[in-house]
Amino acid sequence: MARFEAEYLLETAWPLEKAAAVIAGEQSSGTFRPVPGETEELKARSAARVEALEDLGPCPGPSLPGAAEGPLRRARLVLSWPVANTGISLPNILATVAGNLFELNAVAGLRLTDLRFPAEFVAGCPRPAFGIDGTRALSGVVGRPLIGTIIKPSIGLSAAETAAMVDMLCSAGIDFIKDDELQADGAVCPFEDRVRAVMAVIRDHAERTGKKVMYAFNLTGEVDEMRARHDLVLREGGTCVMASANSVGLTGLLALRRHASLPIHLHRNGWGYLSRHPGLGFDYAAWSKLWRLAGADHMHVNGLANKFCETDESVIASAQSLLQPLAEPHPGIAMPVFASGQTALQAFGTWAALQRTDLIFAAGGGIMAHRDGPAAGVQSLRDAWEAAMAGLSLEQAARDSAALAAALRTYG
Amino acid sequence: MARFEAEYLLETAWPLEKAAAVIAGEQSSGTFRPVPGETEELKARSAARVEALEDLGPCPGPSLPGAAEGPLRRARLVLSWPVANTGISLPNILATVAGNLFELNAVAGLRLTDLRFPAEFVAGCPRPAFGIDGTRALSGVVGRPLIGTIIKPSIGLSAAETAAMVDMLCSAGIDFIKDDELQADGAVCPFEDRVRAVMAVIRDHAERTGKKVMYAFNLTGEVDEMRARHDLVLREGGTCVMASANSVGLTGLLALRRHASLPIHLHRNGWGYLSRHPGLGFDYAAWSKLWRLAGADHMHVNGLANKFCETDESVIASAQSLLQPLAEPHPGIAMPVFASGQTALQAFGTWAALQRTDLIFAAGGGIMAHRDGPAAGVQSLRDAWEAAMAGLSLEQAARDSAALAAALRTYG
Repeated sequence: MARFEAEYLLETAWPLEKAAAVIAGEQSSGTFRPVPGETEELKARSAARVEALEDLGPCPGPSLPGAAEGPLRRARLVLSWPVANTGISLPNILATVAGNLFELNAVAGLRLTDLRFPAEFVAGCPRPAFGIDGTRALSGVVGRPLIGTIIKPSIGLSAAETAAMVDMLCSAGIDFIKDDELQADGAVCPFEDRVRAVMAVIRDHAERTGKKVMYAFNLTGEVDEMRARHDLVLREGGTCVMASANSVGLTGLLALRRHASLPIHLHRNGWGYLSRHPGLGFDYAAWSKLWRLAGADHMHVNGLANKFCETDESVIASAQSLLQPLAEPHPGIAMPVFASGQTALQAFGTWAALQRTDLIFAAGGGIMAHRDGPAAGVQSLRDAWEAAMAGLSLEQAARDSAALAAALRTYG
Repeated sequence: MARFEAEYLLETAWPLEKAAAVIAGEQSSGTFRPVPGETEELKARSAARVEALEDLGPCPGPSLPGAAEGPLRRARLVLSWPVANTGISLPNILATVAGNLFELNAVAGLRLTDLRFPAEFVAGCPRPAFGIDGTRALSGVVGRPLIGTIIKPSIGLSAAETAAMVDMLCSAGIDFIKDDELQADGAVCPFEDRVRAVMAVIRDHAERTGKKVMYAFNLTGEVDEMRARHDLVLREGGTCVMASANSVGLTGLLALRRHASLPIHLHRNGWGYLSRHPGLGFDYAAWSKLWRLAGADHMHVNGLANKFCETDESVIASAQSLLQPLAEPHPGIAMPVFASGQTALQAFGTWAALQRTDLIFAAGGGIMAHRDGPAAGVQSLRDAWEAAMAGLSLEQAARDSAALAAALRTYG
């Protein structure tokens, strides 16, 4: 019978085998006392199995308070469960791989580092409907990243003010624009007004230039709201919708995905509370797989030299994980979205580390605060990527690009 | 204009005022560089406001890695936002109060400790449809806690085996039974088969005894699945459904709540990854308010002397928070569910700390592993609560109750 696997980084003062057995039991057929029904036959069909347990040596203090005390060890733990326990149900997979186990007394630290699903499981999930190829087809951008931006101020502009900014950005040559995750359907900028005003501008530019800018409208809300908002965007000729993963949950995203005929841009706000302590929560590679399986086309990965706390190594690892197939022949690749304090300067390091152009590179201040204006901001990002892909350094490229030279003076 | 508030415990090496301003800016109209559109007028209508900032003194090391370094201070921070930013939309409130802020460079520790909403906001949310009174009316239990249990083994029993266990538990005098959160719609025990088999037993007992046991069927899944499963439970005469909060998300729960005409039993599995590090994530009082507003009737709070890491003080604080009104005249009380390693022994401490009987007291091994069998297990829990409410000690009560005396020998 097919099984799915979860991999963890565990800290415990218990003997490793005992801790692993308790975690496996808690997340399947065991409980804190033997109960009559837990027969060998039942365990054979339903129990979680310890597939690997690798001692990584002693570790200094516990990551988390409240656990059983004693000398601590770290271990890599791999558990597997029969798909028969949950069926092809992502919400129930989450309760299985990331349920009560983080609270166990044996656990002084626990982080879910990876998930692996059999091909038939992956095939049964919705997965991205557009991904990289669909996004390129809708945006008309090939051979380089989509150059994107976020409407700022995040919240407070009216629909007309937003449309005016979009007009300016379209004129500046932008490929992609997104709402901030704080902007959904507030009184100052109702969703419907924003879509109508913005799409009138985008359609107008498209008629004149042949280039339809992709705008990710943040439709985060209740299921019926999201469906109606999606339909409005579609009717108005829009090419992308956006949702906040932690706000809508896997069930919310699945409801959107089952209904949608546009790419889904998934925002990860709240990721910090799921990941920022290294001894607790999720690695992005594991967490993002659930959302890829549920149908996210674009996923945020932060950016190099970002305004937050994440290291560049972690950002690149996240992007690389999105580009790894979930299973063959159903890769379910989500397009990484680089954002947060990005400017032309980070294009070089991003290319060097990733060696891929299949991404959205979104700059807010990196476009709007460019000393020669937004058009120069967009040009600086395009020039930076072209130069990086040609093997030039920032300094070399700045000699041939006034926009890039000015970006270097603005942001360097 | 009405505003909602979030309260945080912050650690930072930055000057407190500056850190507070950056957090407020990130979560409303600010960004990492000044942008032209952030006018004073825009800030007046949309910016988050620092309502309180109380220096709690120096703190030793940072809770979280990656933050700006320097001598650290802790502070209580209260921010407010205009409801106009989000509308009455719980998914968007979550993105606002618990979005990117946990990742900010200024933040060496951040925990959301409370949320406060104006009465008109609370009035516009679905809130619990049943709560304490509705649950008592459907279960017929008054003047004492509902004595409950969880089907164990958690996963692996067939529908017929589950029904046989329910038959035994009904005969034993149980008030409430729930599926384990691992059991939803797996191949070994499909949801539909389980509901039909279990409800036949419960209806049969109800016809004979007049007491209809409340069974919380775990319908966690996609929106359409949850709605169909709810309808099946209703048709079969069931009186409760259950969902896993972190699996379905706020959007998923709202979809269920808008559809449901049965109490919603909300499981918090995964709560550990949201809360177990004291310098990150959520206090239960804050997190649970979002789910109460969305419509949870019952919410899990762990139990005293539990099998996990949580302290008794934290468990009681969680239960008390659920019993506090969200706002008058819309209290939105959710019934606390005590579970995890519970036996008759913990009834005394629970009553002493809470002085309330408006709760579900669920014991698995505390009933099934009782040396004289499940009927004695249920009796021991009833006797324990009756004695505790009468002011007797466990030892005093055990003299008059054979079931309690045996529980003391089994679990003491």
